[in-house]
Amino acid sequence: MNRREFNTRMATLIGTGSLTGVPGLFRRQGRPRVNGQRISRHLAELAQIGKNPQGGVSRLAYSEADLQGREYVMGLMRAAQLEPTIDIAGNILGRRAGTDASLPPLMFGSHIDSVPEGGDYDGPVGSIGAIEVAQALAENDVATRHPLEVAVFQNEEGGKTGSRVLDGEFAERELEIVTASGRTIAEGIRILGGDPTRLAEARRHPGAVAAFLELHVEQGAILDREQINIGVVEGIVGIKRWNVIVEGFANHAGTTPMEHRQDALLAAAKLIQAVNEVVRAMPGRQVGTVGRIQVEPGAPNVVPGRVTLSLEVRDLDMAKIDRIFEGVRMEGQAIARDSGTTVEFDEFYVSRSAPTHERIRQLIEHAAAELGLTTLRMPSGAGHDAQSVARFAPIGMIFVPSVGGISHSPKEFSRPEDINAGVNVLLQTLLELDALTSLE
Amino acid sequence: MNRREFNTRMATLIGTGSLTGVPGLFRRQGRPRVNGQRISRHLAELAQIGKNPQGGVSRLAYSEADLQGREYVMGLMRAAQLEPTIDIAGNILGRRAGTDASLPPLMFGSHIDSVPEGGDYDGPVGSIGAIEVAQALAENDVATRHPLEVAVFQNEEGGKTGSRVLDGEFAERELEIVTASGRTIAEGIRILGGDPTRLAEARRHPGAVAAFLELHVEQGAILDREQINIGVVEGIVGIKRWNVIVEGFANHAGTTPMEHRQDALLAAAKLIQAVNEVVRAMPGRQVGTVGRIQVEPGAPNVVPGRVTLSLEVRDLDMAKIDRIFEGVRMEGQAIARDSGTTVEFDEFYVSRSAPTHERIRQLIEHAAAELGLTTLRMPSGAGHDAQSVARFAPIGMIFVPSVGGISHSPKEFSRPEDINAGVNVLLQTLLELDALTSLE
Repeated sequence: MNRREFNTRMATLIGTGSLTGVPGLFRRQGRPRVNGQRISRHLAELAQIGKNPQGGVSRLAYSEADLQGREYVMGLMRAAQLEPTIDIAGNILGRRAGTDASLPPLMFGSHIDSVPEGGDYDGPVGSIGAIEVAQALAENDVATRHPLEVAVFQNEEGGKTGSRVLDGEFAERELEIVTASGRTIAEGIRILGGDPTRLAEARRHPGAVAAFLELHVEQGAILDREQINIGVVEGIVGIKRWNVIVEGFANHAGTTPMEHRQDALLAAAKLIQAVNEVVRAMPGRQVGTVGRIQVEPGAPNVVPGRVTLSLEVRDLDMAKIDRIFEGVRMEGQAIARDSGTTVEFDEFYVSRSAPTHERIRQLIEHAAAELGLTTLRMPSGAGHDAQSVARFAPIGMIFVPSVGGISHSPKEFSRPEDINAGVNVLLQTLLELDALTSLE
Repeated sequence: MNRREFNTRMATLIGTGSLTGVPGLFRRQGRPRVNGQRISRHLAELAQIGKNPQGGVSRLAYSEADLQGREYVMGLMRAAQLEPTIDIAGNILGRRAGTDASLPPLMFGSHIDSVPEGGDYDGPVGSIGAIEVAQALAENDVATRHPLEVAVFQNEEGGKTGSRVLDGEFAERELEIVTASGRTIAEGIRILGGDPTRLAEARRHPGAVAAFLELHVEQGAILDREQINIGVVEGIVGIKRWNVIVEGFANHAGTTPMEHRQDALLAAAKLIQAVNEVVRAMPGRQVGTVGRIQVEPGAPNVVPGRVTLSLEVRDLDMAKIDRIFEGVRMEGQAIARDSGTTVEFDEFYVSRSAPTHERIRQLIEHAAAELGLTTLRMPSGAGHDAQSVARFAPIGMIFVPSVGGISHSPKEFSRPEDINAGVNVLLQTLLELDALTSLE
């Protein structure tokens, strides 16, 4: 048994042992730790690519900045002894062999593309963190049983394109969508080195990946507000979206008496309040949002004739989303009746909820506890690549606090110590996963 | 005394007599009547100019259609023995001499320009009607004591430009406004035959016009709904408009719990309801409208951070407008306090109310009664050229029913018999006014 094999055994034992109560003597000595300063340096270097004058980054998928950012992370992968390749979908996959070639890989990673005028942490924390985990394993000569696959998925912000090609959910018609970069998704995939005509080849079927872990900033303020180190994600919430059309009758605002108006905006205002009331009337962490509203004709001196607004409801439980919608729909009918308007709902988007694997949640909690970190179970209200992967592999997600919960903004910020803690949890969870023979 | 002079005396006597109870023997014989078929024909001919494929007209001020329409009405004026001229402001004025050259003119008329995709009646009814009155006088050889001045004001729909030059309210900076025709007001005035550098010369000072009458479609549904023939306008309501800015905090709709949101749209929705409640809580015919709303960032998946909406309040009594605003402002403060938002009001438009002259209202009521027509006193919720003229002359306004109250639409419609009745009331009111030595 050479040093590498020894370390692997130790790690395996420790990993398993830590779950079954083996005394911790070896742990403190044997467990590799990630390098917090290096993580900070890599995050800062990546944040230079696509940097906005006012801070934050605009590293839109398929933009020049995206291509540069990808070159940068592939360099980090090589330094971490990962062999980066571009798959058919344009995702970057950094591979490292395991000791048991018969096992499917453990996959972990995130994305590096950003929204326009986004922040430096949403995506990069999980991507740089995953590469750091590989580097720590390499530096500590830790081998794993499973092959490792560090994934940097492409175009997460524009519709989780890269991860959705893997799960087979990506639809061919989406290839023509023009993204924020100005390029279509098909053009984008080509530029990244993928092949939009052969996407089916990138598909992963159940069993092809042993498990997937994603580290990410919370994008909410729960951990920050409650001063908790690690969020143990229960799942990515499901989302349904509707266009709501309120039809009244446009009329002259000066000549139409109040009692004879069929004011679509007044009816819409009542509906917006009803959404808030219906969502809050139920216990739980569901959310409901009206984020967009358009009025026609939209002049100060015209009684609104038609209003289009968006309704979005999110929860881990799809059935609860439907119950909330039913409540809103009934309120809408009552409002329409009282106001001489009609209210119609047109569902235009569904994203199924993706629960994380209970065993992996426990591994994360255990890893955090071993590191002296506090944890909280929570839903992820935002979508993530892990959601796509959940269709073919068990997933786990680790959240680190985001100061003030600010997201998709140059002001987004996570503290280096919190990120470092999250990457260590990722590393330990990965090692514990590697040691398991089965997740059941 | 020739026939013309005799007729003039008769008309004068009848006009005055009808107010003081002189028996009606002469009236039925001597009173001229307008030609309803001719009015319908002229309205139909004018409606061909700038006609939309789908009906109605787009005869925007300063457009080719506007110029053609003006040529058409100047032709009608000549046929009615009016001498049309273009004043410095670009208004068409058709003059007819009176028997007493020392008297200031009686002015009457309206406009022929339309909004984009407007109707065939808003403006033309009062313009064609005024020319018809002159033609009926000519055909019946009726002379008036006062000179008559039929006015077709330019660019009513784009800001009452023509009439506002007369009252001195038109500001030089407005010359650079680009109108819906694509031309600036300065270019427009030149095209019409006016001179934008000499507008001060067009100004009319108090006393220069004896009185002004405007016949117009109601642009509301009150007369139509209550089946009344003639609206006796109490005045053109005053208007105040505000931009209301509701500032909350934009956040991720998936990751921000309901209880931690500062949702600007939810607060705005409550304010829209509060406007309706405050306006309706007071007795009277005041109206309050939120017709425009914009949300930032305005995406289905983002809690709204900022909402800008318009608030408009109209009433004949400016002090009441201020009381209503004060009520709305207080509600806004309470909503802001409860929702973690701020609500600011920025007044950007004031139009003073313009009451009609009580004596002229009585003359209209009397003329209508003599014609066997029902009347209703009502405010004009819409603005009109009469509003500008009110600053230098006593005004009266006659409304005729508009089916369904539809306005600024190709569907706008007034029945020929209602228009005919309105033009007859205009004619008789004019003759009664002409007979008065004073309005006091």
